[in-house]
Amino acid sequence: MSYTAPLKDMLFAIEHLAGIEQVAQLPGFEDAGRDTAAAVLEECARFNEGVVAPLNVIGDQQPSRWQDGAVHTTPGFKEAYAQFTQGGWQGLQHPVDHGGQGLPKTIGAACVEMLNSANLSFALCPLLTDGAIEALLTAGSEALKATYLDKLVSGEWTGTMNLTEPQAGSDLALVRTRAEPQGDGSYKVFGTKIYITYGEHDMADNIVHLVLARVAGAPEGVKGISLFVVPKFLVNADGSLGARNDVHCVSIEHKLGIKASPTAVLQFGDHRGATGWLVGEENRGLEYMFIMMNAARYAVGVQGIAIAERAYQKAVQYARERVQSRPVDGSARASVPIIQHPDVRRMLMTMRALTEGCRAMASVAAAAYDAAHHHPDAQARQESAAFYEFLVPLVKGFATEMSQEVTSLGVQVHGGMGFIEETGAAQYLRDARILTIYEGTTAIQANDLVGRKTARDGGQLARAIAAHIAQTEDALRTAGGDAAASLATRLGAARTAFLEVVDFIASHAKEDPNAAYAGSVPYLMLAGNLVAGWQMGRALLAAQQLSGQGQDEAFLQAKIATARFYGEHILVRVPALKDEIVHGAASVMALAPEAF
Amino acid sequence: MSYTAPLKDMLFAIEHLAGIEQVAQLPGFEDAGRDTAAAVLEECARFNEGVVAPLNVIGDQQPSRWQDGAVHTTPGFKEAYAQFTQGGWQGLQHPVDHGGQGLPKTIGAACVEMLNSANLSFALCPLLTDGAIEALLTAGSEALKATYLDKLVSGEWTGTMNLTEPQAGSDLALVRTRAEPQGDGSYKVFGTKIYITYGEHDMADNIVHLVLARVAGAPEGVKGISLFVVPKFLVNADGSLGARNDVHCVSIEHKLGIKASPTAVLQFGDHRGATGWLVGEENRGLEYMFIMMNAARYAVGVQGIAIAERAYQKAVQYARERVQSRPVDGSARASVPIIQHPDVRRMLMTMRALTEGCRAMASVAAAAYDAAHHHPDAQARQESAAFYEFLVPLVKGFATEMSQEVTSLGVQVHGGMGFIEETGAAQYLRDARILTIYEGTTAIQANDLVGRKTARDGGQLARAIAAHIAQTEDALRTAGGDAAASLATRLGAARTAFLEVVDFIASHAKEDPNAAYAGSVPYLMLAGNLVAGWQMGRALLAAQQLSGQGQDEAFLQAKIATARFYGEHILVRVPALKDEIVHGAASVMALAPEAF
Repeated sequence: MSYTAPLKDMLFAIEHLAGIEQVAQLPGFEDAGRDTAAAVLEECARFNEGVVAPLNVIGDQQPSRWQDGAVHTTPGFKEAYAQFTQGGWQGLQHPVDHGGQGLPKTIGAACVEMLNSANLSFALCPLLTDGAIEALLTAGSEALKATYLDKLVSGEWTGTMNLTEPQAGSDLALVRTRAEPQGDGSYKVFGTKIYITYGEHDMADNIVHLVLARVAGAPEGVKGISLFVVPKFLVNADGSLGARNDVHCVSIEHKLGIKASPTAVLQFGDHRGATGWLVGEENRGLEYMFIMMNAARYAVGVQGIAIAERAYQKAVQYARERVQSRPVDGSARASVPIIQHPDVRRMLMTMRALTEGCRAMASVAAAAYDAAHHHPDAQARQESAAFYEFLVPLVKGFATEMSQEVTSLGVQVHGGMGFIEETGAAQYLRDARILTIYEGTTAIQANDLVGRKTARDGGQLARAIAAHIAQTEDALRTAGGDAAASLATRLGAARTAFLEVVDFIASHAKEDPNAAYAGSVPYLMLAGNLVAGWQMGRALLAAQQLSGQGQDEAFLQAKIATARFYGEHILVRVPALKDEIVHGAASVMALAPEAF
Repeated sequence: MSYTAPLKDMLFAIEHLAGIEQVAQLPGFEDAGRDTAAAVLEECARFNEGVVAPLNVIGDQQPSRWQDGAVHTTPGFKEAYAQFTQGGWQGLQHPVDHGGQGLPKTIGAACVEMLNSANLSFALCPLLTDGAIEALLTAGSEALKATYLDKLVSGEWTGTMNLTEPQAGSDLALVRTRAEPQGDGSYKVFGTKIYITYGEHDMADNIVHLVLARVAGAPEGVKGISLFVVPKFLVNADGSLGARNDVHCVSIEHKLGIKASPTAVLQFGDHRGATGWLVGEENRGLEYMFIMMNAARYAVGVQGIAIAERAYQKAVQYARERVQSRPVDGSARASVPIIQHPDVRRMLMTMRALTEGCRAMASVAAAAYDAAHHHPDAQARQESAAFYEFLVPLVKGFATEMSQEVTSLGVQVHGGMGFIEETGAAQYLRDARILTIYEGTTAIQANDLVGRKTARDGGQLARAIAAHIAQTEDALRTAGGDAAASLATRLGAARTAFLEVVDFIASHAKEDPNAAYAGSVPYLMLAGNLVAGWQMGRALLAAQQLSGQGQDEAFLQAKIATARFYGEHILVRVPALKDEIVHGAASVMALAPEAF
């Protein structure tokens, strides 16, 4: 077994947590009900299990190579990418007007998870193209849209995001790449960009770079950054490819993981200047880039879920097959499969609960995104947008941090075999390690959560979410059963801790920002844990309600057991995080920098 | 900077926590006081910083190779090893009778830490030799000792531990390698051993394999395992090397980390049988092996501390140099070194507190070992031995688990650079990943802690340790100051949780073993966290006492701040672990194996 898409769990989340039938009430999504979701997911599973997943190990062993001035991707990638575009998978969530399928994110997110479980390195190419499409749809002129969108939506051309420079990582105020207007509507772009995912490759005819740069005379800092389209090949008026543009890959990185994904250093304008076109207005580049970034951040959170799922499947398989030691309860006199041993079971349950909890959270966030963009009522759109935006740093931050724990447990379940590269468990750990870093580190997500998502409205939205969680607790208490009662208690304790932290953050963010930001990542971990636990609570309720109605009873009982485990082993981490934040801020900053 | 030995912290722990002057009261250690410790550590630092540390990156880039039937170690390793033996470092803790220096473990452990910080892969060779020496000293015949000990203590020959077989990892009952008595006192050994660290290499003239095997007719399971010496080259009566023995390396592994350390598959007896000699008595092999294992387990715990220290140093250096973003408190209008940012500070403090806490715990454990072996009073020896044995699974389990967290934080501090292999931060993460696996996984350590160390005496020793911790809390409360008061509170809460868990483990280990063992690893993490925190409490007390007496005030204030941080950010994790163990056992085993 290489990878089997967790269709049951995905459809359960889409139907009973995200509420696909409500999504299908939204204008434009009339055909996107449960049956469509099931049909799309099954087709998607077939493609990813059969075509993309088998290339994952090959990509690690034969990474993309930089040779003779060109990037050669892993053998098989080009062919698989051709099948990906032929299947229309790039356009899944994009507008029908541009050749896409216009499906809701509620369905699309599950497809993104599958692609990433199958092959994180491969999936990065479409992920970046999605971002470029998003930016052009939001701020591109009609001419830019006409030139680029159809080709990007079909996947014929791919997209990139060019933010980072050697001196400008998290701090985009330091961007130095410059753009000079040419008087004909175009610009010449000069500068060096690093960490450009699929910045150069051989899988598509053209690469559409979206590039942050400064126009001469622009204000300093982030308010003087503009966004440009700089294609690898210029595009003729008839849509055919023209001259090679002056943007060149000079090397690709040697990385810990996602080795098949080429990470390029790009030189813009080393010869006569790279020709680019402004997206939207000058000096609003960061604003547009945040649109791409938000889409990409959500997607990176899904990558965390995806790699966790794959690591979990591999660990379960090994734990079933590996025979070692007698059971501690004396139930067998011979050695047994290690899945019988309590600590192996604890590791597998931890992996499972974290993965399912984050999947549930991401699925609910996707539905909020769909409502934010398609609901006919303006207030409903605004509320959904605020909820979605609160969830984005949690999906990105918490799901990727948990993927570190899950992939590391995956190695541990394998024992010594886990450390041998041929086993494959270590690749998931290595691949996952980038997820808490790119598209904004966990600390950057946490700053967003503290500043824009919590302090700005004085914690109002956070408290409103807590009130919804309290309703789920009430429902769990009335639902009956030990599992529901246990989870209600754990959720209540976690929610109380959350509220205390929200008050602390809201009251300190301005008057004592060091104290508030000292607890930023613990706050993110607390909030992510709570919201995922809340969704596990809703999942438990749905499972209990569906139980006995002739549905897949084993699945429903497993969901109830996993939700209970989540409460008793994952949610219990919350109060310690609260302590750290509320009572531990001073000791974070106590040591002078020179004393380290 | 590559690596700078943390001499101040090591000597502080040796002097004020382990009590080197008391160790120097023990017969045989009269010369091993504070001044000796300082002199040895300074010399050791010079050697490791200058000779061994620079080879660390080279070892990762040019790992040991298996070619033409031989293992070729990393360029430079052979020469560095020659310097290591010439310096007498192998014999540091071994008997003067056999050419060693006879220093206490209290001093030796710090030297082991330095060697491992400098180069984990290199350090493994001496580490395994230490184990072989230990086994021969304990159970070897006079003839075996005479033949092998001096050469091992000098480092002229190296040692290995041969336990694992493809079907026998944690479960040594499944060992199949067999030994046939030849009537002349020797045996012929036949079988396959895997994961043999430095099982073959080119750094020494001979390799002395210590091998677990079964003699025909021996009882099944672990009670039928014997221990044999099987040298790579037979040794003539005059001590010179004789014929090549029938033990051969057939391949070495391709691993996630510690790539310079060759991990061999060894075939014994493929031709006419490998000649071996029984160590001690037949069928007592596991008992002897546990002597080696206990020494090795402690040393692997020190490896965790060592790699954490090195990752910490690298992260601090980067955080001081990397300039990015303005401070959240508005104290500067330009971008500042990232060490100014609260979350970077939180990460560095977490790394520092965990490392110092575990170093303190390991240092105290080393002193207990020395007393257990050298105290003139039998009861004192026995009490020290019991204390040491309680600490071994904590040093091995907790310090290696924390090294996963610390090395991962080390990557995170570096941001995108952390994921690029040339940076070097990722190597520490990869190297560290074996530490929770070899010499017994964390679960195996936890089983030891639950079964032999806690349940067997009904939790008596655990409660006695808790009583000592309570005394430290009292001292902290009377010592005065916010830091001491804060740490007393956190220690008290953690100790209370520990006692509750000890009662649970002691009462469930027999009647409901699945419940007790479901919480085994959380119990280990709880106990390790508490004992390290206890030592941080003692460190804080010592630092406050020494403060103002003309000693290094900056160091003392940093120790106080770090101890407080430990309480407020690390010890606070304990109650959640207690909840998991005491209230979460059922949900660990709730899901049937087929439901995963």
